[in-house]
Amino acid sequence: MEARTPGRDGLGDLIGLEYLETGPEEVRARLGVTDDIRQPVGLVHGGVFAAMAESMCSAATWLGVREDGMAAMGQSNNATFIRAITEGHVNALARPRHRGRTTWVWDVEITDDDDRLCALVRMTVAVRPVR
Amino acid sequence: MEARTPGRDGLGDLIGLEYLETGPEEVRARLGVTDDIRQPVGLVHGGVFAAMAESMCSAATWLGVREDGMAAMGQSNNATFIRAITEGHVNALARPRHRGRTTWVWDVEITDDDDRLCALVRMTVAVRPVR
Amino acid sequence: MEARTPGRDGLGDLIGLEYLETGPEEVRARLGVTDDIRQPVGLVHGGVFAAMAESMCSAATWLGVREDGMAAMGQSNNATFIRAITEGHVNALARPRHRGRTTWVWDVEITDDDDRLCALVRMTVAVRPVR
Amino acid sequence: MEARTPGRDGLGDLIGLEYLETGPEEVRARLGVTDDIRQPVGLVHGGVFAAMAESMCSAATWLGVREDGMAAMGQSNNATFIRAITEGHVNALARPRHRGRTTWVWDVEITDDDDRLCALVRMTVAVRPVR
Repeated sequence: MEARTPGRDGLGDLIGLEYLETGPEEVRARLGVTDDIRQPVGLVHGGVFAAMAESMCSAATWLGVREDGMAAMGQSNNATFIRAITEGHVNALARPRHRGRTTWVWDVEITDDDDRLCALVRMTVAVRPVR
Repeated sequence: MEARTPGRDGLGDLIGLEYLETGPEEVRARLGVTDDIRQPVGLVHGGVFAAMAESMCSAATWLGVREDGMAAMGQSNNATFIRAITEGHVNALARPRHRGRTTWVWDVEITDDDDRLCALVRMTVAVRPVR
Repeated sequence: MEARTPGRDGLGDLIGLEYLETGPEEVRARLGVTDDIRQPVGLVHGGVFAAMAESMCSAATWLGVREDGMAAMGQSNNATFIRAITEGHVNALARPRHRGRTTWVWDVEITDDDDRLCALVRMTVAVRPVR
Repeated sequence: MEARTPGRDGLGDLIGLEYLETGPEEVRARLGVTDDIRQPVGLVHGGVFAAMAESMCSAATWLGVREDGMAAMGQSNNATFIRAITEGHVNALARPRHRGRTTWVWDVEITDDDDRLCALVRMTVAVRPVR
């Protein structure tokens, strides 16, 4: 996806975000768990889940609206933490729930390598004319 | 605060989180804007705001409950984005709104160097007995 | 469901909430649109979507935990509004995403009579020992 | 406020919402606790807090933008429940945190008659041209 975005996703790179699929109906990405993304007691930092969702949904919305001369910018990011991840990968699957003229709404599921649900993130991305 | 936490905050370090104050009624922290935390069009990545709030509120809750043999773990992180930050610092001020037996609730305000409100984050941190 | 709950759901009755299905994997309910639940410009009031989700998820969690001597109480209710409803029914489908020892997490979809998605509500319900 | 809104707030009337102050910097309202708004175990229904916030913030945003030919419509309503209310009044204080061209963001505090914080609601209200 990098080649199609206007620039570098610095935070995505920092946390090791790797895209696996970027279709219109779902976006899949993952990253490997290292000490760089663990919080002090060894669990993956909750900000990682929020950051993955933010990168994935903003980029995918932008891909969907840029041909109409529109830009995409995160408006809200609501993460609910369900189960800690301590090793392996953080796997994220994002699906659009609404593609409106002024906002897109996404649901992101975060799972561990045993396919257990670890977090849910709901992202609203604002769609606005490029200034 | 590092010396008092059980370990390293990897993501906090990655994004350059620096604590300015860690009192019981407010926690202040900031980080400098670099390309590492900008998203593709040059704005600070929304995940940075969520990650700052997560680090600050989880650590501060832990400091408040650890002497009772309790641990603190993020339960939800709801970020609302209001204004983009492109340079200078990301400044965060966290205040506890509720210190309960099973959850603490925090409000975090994110401002730029001109003291303009850029994001609001509401964090709920679960408080549970250390296993 | 009324006969199995400990008392009356006053707000549910006020807005005309009617349960259609109360199984463990999904709960369905609806209500008819009247002026009593429209806001000033004629759309169904957003509080109705939140109230439906709150009633359905709290009751269904309680049904799932009461035999263990536990009570259920709403902890957070996050509603995202997507499309206005002006007539017909407000239809709600709630599915549990997490059934934990201390919290249950639910996703609720609100649709109109043409099966268009009109709102998404994510509810976290706290599970605590009955005092 | 009723006289200045374009029509009746049906749900506000149902739950007994009474405005005490509607200034530009804060809106205050309350309602008396009756069985009509209690959930089955006797606590005020969480949907009441969400509905109060929705009525107050939508109406106040509309008052602020209507002279510019704009309409206001709830976009998200995020309620966090902190302490149960069982009697007396539900008191709500709403303050605008952001008045933008396309969205207004409000923070609402819900308290009981002993001035204890019982819930926090963050509302985002979309501002759009009247069609």
